[in-house]
Amino acid sequence: MNPPVNPSVNTFRNDSFLRALKGQATAYTPVWIMRQAGRYLPEYRAIRERAGDFLSLCRNPELACEVTLQPLERFRLDAAILFSDILTIPDAMGLGLSIDEGVGPRFERPLRTARDVDNLSAPDPEQDLRYVLDAARAAKGALGDSVPLIGFSGSPWTLATYMVEGGGGRDFRTLKRMLYTAPRLAHRLLEVNARAVADYLKAQIAAGVDAVMVFDTWGGALSARAFREFSLAYTERIVRELRADRGGVPILLFTKGGGQWAEAIAATGCDAVGLDWTASLSDVRKRLGDGVALQGNMDPLVLRSTPERIREEARAVLDDFGAYGRHVFNLGHGIPPDVDPGHVAALVDAVHEYSAR
Amino acid sequence: MNPPVNPSVNTFRNDSFLRALKGQATAYTPVWIMRQAGRYLPEYRAIRERAGDFLSLCRNPELACEVTLQPLERFRLDAAILFSDILTIPDAMGLGLSIDEGVGPRFERPLRTARDVDNLSAPDPEQDLRYVLDAARAAKGALGDSVPLIGFSGSPWTLATYMVEGGGGRDFRTLKRMLYTAPRLAHRLLEVNARAVADYLKAQIAAGVDAVMVFDTWGGALSARAFREFSLAYTERIVRELRADRGGVPILLFTKGGGQWAEAIAATGCDAVGLDWTASLSDVRKRLGDGVALQGNMDPLVLRSTPERIREEARAVLDDFGAYGRHVFNLGHGIPPDVDPGHVAALVDAVHEYSAR
Repeated sequence: MNPPVNPSVNTFRNDSFLRALKGQATAYTPVWIMRQAGRYLPEYRAIRERAGDFLSLCRNPELACEVTLQPLERFRLDAAILFSDILTIPDAMGLGLSIDEGVGPRFERPLRTARDVDNLSAPDPEQDLRYVLDAARAAKGALGDSVPLIGFSGSPWTLATYMVEGGGGRDFRTLKRMLYTAPRLAHRLLEVNARAVADYLKAQIAAGVDAVMVFDTWGGALSARAFREFSLAYTERIVRELRADRGGVPILLFTKGGGQWAEAIAATGCDAVGLDWTASLSDVRKRLGDGVALQGNMDPLVLRSTPERIREEARAVLDDFGAYGRHVFNLGHGIPPDVDPGHVAALVDAVHEYSAR
Repeated sequence: MNPPVNPSVNTFRNDSFLRALKGQATAYTPVWIMRQAGRYLPEYRAIRERAGDFLSLCRNPELACEVTLQPLERFRLDAAILFSDILTIPDAMGLGLSIDEGVGPRFERPLRTARDVDNLSAPDPEQDLRYVLDAARAAKGALGDSVPLIGFSGSPWTLATYMVEGGGGRDFRTLKRMLYTAPRLAHRLLEVNARAVADYLKAQIAAGVDAVMVFDTWGGALSARAFREFSLAYTERIVRELRADRGGVPILLFTKGGGQWAEAIAATGCDAVGLDWTASLSDVRKRLGDGVALQGNMDPLVLRSTPERIREEARAVLDDFGAYGRHVFNLGHGIPPDVDPGHVAALVDAVHEYSAR
């Protein structure tokens, strides 16, 4: 009925993902899967071995493009997501990223002093992160008009957790100590990160991605007040800047553990609120109304059960969202590396079939 | 104005904790701290060394009583909590608990088969967990009419996570596999656990504790639907049984990550909903009304900052709860082991002073 907000919406043979984000009618609920290009696929593991390690694969635009496309050759997914990592920005800032898939990411030179923070500057994406943009351009070329391509970044706060802690963790005691004892220093760090993420996402959009997603993987570790001050305020700046600069390119915000803050997240003006599996879609939808899309939220570990059970849970998630509408089906977090690809096929088909009822 | 619901309320010199739970006027917001008897206290570490290890300390009623009282000698806390562990029940079931304070709890004989589950039975508290009840009796005797004593247990679901996984973890893949592929087996396990927790808390009440708390440390790992089916349904049974059997003894339910489910948690009929630091007290209070107390919820890591900052954050939590009322101040989770005890004193005093305004 309404003309599409994003002029590119109608240029895809399968535009269900972009239409659902904008609240336009679709033939079924679109579905894609966080980390859909990844270790659970034998063809991914083969290329990964050829590349050497995870980061070498990210940095090789041709192989990153190939890996981006792999899951779409197997499954009827409604969107592709660029194969990359949420930590490319701090790596480009010179912190020295390494990723051991068993252990997680590590920075060789984490931020240790106020001076380290003051010496940071936002990378120039076309120069310092060109490999990501080249991969995006290659993937866009290869995808043609089939399905949209999603670009992404870690959120300023989530980047900061790794930059300060030096790696993954659970309680973020060093960064939290900074928040509580040197909040201005934390704000300086988050400002640089926000600048960097905005530039990076704008460059990805210029390189052709059709939507961008910000992963606030660790926003849920903050108190409600600190989340607004140290995470959401910066993500909101990015949303505002992309809106002013890039018009209607859809923006998705995913905050693990953020279900209880969904109102505040939606108030940034994003197009979709990504929810982990602990949220009730019906509850959040009731609270937010129809003005924003919801993305999610099946427990990823359901994929380690049986095809029958996967179909049941997919239907339960769709029923929970309720009457057909502004919903993009996804897992509540990344797909585990030991899932049977046949189970993913069962999920994707179940979502399409049941939602087309 | 109202007569006290719990006849014991008025027998304490400091009954602020019990009064706040029941919504009765108090001179200030009462405060106690999860794991207040613990490693951050040098006097605890001294006794712990004498006892040998953590579990030997739990199993020695005299020393467990002494440790229970330690924080009350230092700080003006409004309640004591029995020094014990949330995993005493599965240990009494024969699973062989060991606790390395660096690593966390481990069971020597985790549940591996359906037969293991079917062979479980609820322990007889006076026989199999007598050391806990003896410690409760000793602590009650030592506390006299000073402040109330809180007894506790892990929730049926949280016990199950350790019993099946064999230790702590983050994603609970073995137990979740059971939920999603053999839900009846999971229900059999949770039924035994619920029986055991109800018996155990009744025995603690008979031994003299003045309130009981159920810790659902890992309920937040479940989807909203699975939380209700596999965790809350069983905690609710326990609440109903304690109510029928033990009248008005206050029941507190703490679910880490449960802020978004606060309505459902309150609907069990508990007296207080414990909230971690990610919840907004004002938001939850608005959603739940005044019919239930809230307990929480300062980020424990604030205690690693400075006394000034601790005072500010304590005031922010009190302000967030808003107009004086049915609130018990606490941290949003256990106190970290490396906190300066002087910081705890600053917190307790700040809560009392600011809330007495």
